[in-house]
Amino acid sequence: MSVKFAVLGHGVVGSGVVELFYKNKKSIEKRAGTEMDIKYILDLRDFPDSPYKDKFTKDFNDIVNDDEVSAVAECMGGVEPAFTFVKACLEKGKSVSTSNKELVAEKGDILLKTAKEHNCNFFFEASVGGAIPIIRPLHKCLAANDIDKVAGILNGTTNFILTKMYNDNMPFTDALKLAQELGYAEKDPTADIEGHDACRKICIISSLVFGKHVYPKDVYTKGISQMELCDVAAADVLGHSVKLIASVRKTSNGKILPAVMPMLVSYDSIIAGVNDVFNAVLVYGDGIDQAMFYGRGAGKLPTASAVMGDVIETVKLEGTEGSQTWESSSDNSFIDSIDNLSAHWYFRVPSGSASPEGSYEHEDGISFITDDVLTFKGASAKASEIGALACIPVFE
Amino acid sequence: MSVKFAVLGHGVVGSGVVELFYKNKKSIEKRAGTEMDIKYILDLRDFPDSPYKDKFTKDFNDIVNDDEVSAVAECMGGVEPAFTFVKACLEKGKSVSTSNKELVAEKGDILLKTAKEHNCNFFFEASVGGAIPIIRPLHKCLAANDIDKVAGILNGTTNFILTKMYNDNMPFTDALKLAQELGYAEKDPTADIEGHDACRKICIISSLVFGKHVYPKDVYTKGISQMELCDVAAADVLGHSVKLIASVRKTSNGKILPAVMPMLVSYDSIIAGVNDVFNAVLVYGDGIDQAMFYGRGAGKLPTASAVMGDVIETVKLEGTEGSQTWESSSDNSFIDSIDNLSAHWYFRVPSGSASPEGSYEHEDGISFITDDVLTFKGASAKASEIGALACIPVFE
Repeated sequence: MSVKFAVLGHGVVGSGVVELFYKNKKSIEKRAGTEMDIKYILDLRDFPDSPYKDKFTKDFNDIVNDDEVSAVAECMGGVEPAFTFVKACLEKGKSVSTSNKELVAEKGDILLKTAKEHNCNFFFEASVGGAIPIIRPLHKCLAANDIDKVAGILNGTTNFILTKMYNDNMPFTDALKLAQELGYAEKDPTADIEGHDACRKICIISSLVFGKHVYPKDVYTKGISQMELCDVAAADVLGHSVKLIASVRKTSNGKILPAVMPMLVSYDSIIAGVNDVFNAVLVYGDGIDQAMFYGRGAGKLPTASAVMGDVIETVKLEGTEGSQTWESSSDNSFIDSIDNLSAHWYFRVPSGSASPEGSYEHEDGISFITDDVLTFKGASAKASEIGALACIPVFE
Repeated sequence: MSVKFAVLGHGVVGSGVVELFYKNKKSIEKRAGTEMDIKYILDLRDFPDSPYKDKFTKDFNDIVNDDEVSAVAECMGGVEPAFTFVKACLEKGKSVSTSNKELVAEKGDILLKTAKEHNCNFFFEASVGGAIPIIRPLHKCLAANDIDKVAGILNGTTNFILTKMYNDNMPFTDALKLAQELGYAEKDPTADIEGHDACRKICIISSLVFGKHVYPKDVYTKGISQMELCDVAAADVLGHSVKLIASVRKTSNGKILPAVMPMLVSYDSIIAGVNDVFNAVLVYGDGIDQAMFYGRGAGKLPTASAVMGDVIETVKLEGTEGSQTWESSSDNSFIDSIDNLSAHWYFRVPSGSASPEGSYEHEDGISFITDDVLTFKGASAKASEIGALACIPVFE
């Protein structure tokens, strides 16, 4: 028997799936335990020079109505028409593997339920951390753990920019321009630099780990567009690097607190060394203490690797992978307020202010990290009180 | 229905499995999709104060002959009697999850074959990298990749010793003594410091990734007992840390080359920051480029977490996980000679020798890293020629 699957979208990731599949077809089939082939590639554009031009279709109905197609790789991006297409495939019992974080963050609960009802799978390893295996390890290998925190560098574009600011003393706007030139940032970089992309990914992780759908709109999200070079330099002197951290943790009142914001990361932490476009996810559990997963968070073949890993898994599986799921959430009462976030804080105050112990004087002011742990609310109050020019929490 | 499993051995790992299971029983059962309980704990010792004292047995026959026991966690260590017990369980169709790297490295092919023949599973996530999910990600999430190299820090004891030598300028013998005092090293530390433990782990990874059983006796293995403080310090000046690296790579003649030895790791590499008892595994594939998995490589609850993850998976699975397997090897002709290893090399020569560019003069000699790539054989020849006092390959 030969398993036929379809690829929706022939952009960066979709074309990567096709390329990687045919490159490693033999070993993929060995691992899947069956012959496999791509029957359709869906795209509205023409690809007359593609070696697979006979497989292209512009009509989604060709795919959804073909009973021979048992699996689908969705690599279109965006909520629509991806949601309509994926839901239709699942309703026909076709398992779907997706790289589309927006789709999973907004509609994951519905699609997981649809998959379950139709005895097929909705997989999304590629939607978080690109090539990095994180979804499957989280809910399989770490299944014996009570997980109380997950935190990571989940956006490669901002990590590249921060690395340039740090290593080459390059101002934010120049580093962004370079990222765009190198193809790491979009023409409109808002989703990356304002943290929306990282937010979608931490929503997916939060939903999976804590079992209830977390929507992007309910997550405090701050990007790096206001980050100043002098704070990156001062953090270094204080033994820290600045990273855009997406995290979720259990809080003492029984809620969870997901958030995205720039944080100072101590050089003692393994994620301080995660540079350039690389991503990393740290998981804290009562069995493992901490584990980290590191790799390329985006890009053609890295993301395709994760999509294809899911397609192979769905071909091998009979029935559904029930544990990779979560419930819909009717309200956001299980999400704690950012005001309750506790951390040490980095402040920069004008030169001439009183210098606490361990502080660093430089031409842009006096930088220091608080001895005390303050809440987000408390830090904001202190910032106004001391006339702080910058105020950034320290990652712990 | 309630699934009953048994735990063989109540040492550090076995008692951790019991502790972690009862601590997180509710969430474990939710993930497994069924009620679960431990029916037996096998140990020759008495544990009269254990809250689970009624579950203890000294007779393995109680377990193997009990049809209600469908899964077994083997945490005894050593090849025998573990091999006899595990094989007997598999022959009765009971799936086995083990933390026993010696068993898997020596007998993995036989046990995987036995499991397949009896439609059950032999899982061993805990045998490599303790808490770190690496076995399942390697053969599932990365299944679409052609993997050409895996390299890692797979022994926590030696990494702790090297970290102490580096951070605190502590000589090898003192660092070993401290590791023993802290319980990180055994009374007889040979298996750790001479690299045998790391060797077993790279054998398991090599077998899994390349599909043929690799025996420890066929792997070049050098430990850290000869490592001198002056070389750790000189490496630092040259921008590198010294790590005990276990690696396997494809070589140009179609063979594979597994090896364990101290290597210099550039500070640019993410694994240079892996310190203390932590382990890390770097995987290189044509889709992912590189990915790293990091965490606690040993210890009670971390290792128990991996064993329990496997037990949960086996409870959820129906039938066998066919892809997590390899063939027996009738000879070692697929393993390349260490003489063919290519690398840049670190040398230390007596003071008064000619100093190449970029070299570092210190009271113990002159240290430098070669511009050229040399084979292992070529480096040995050069070492005699220049009267080298130390000769260590650079990790790439």
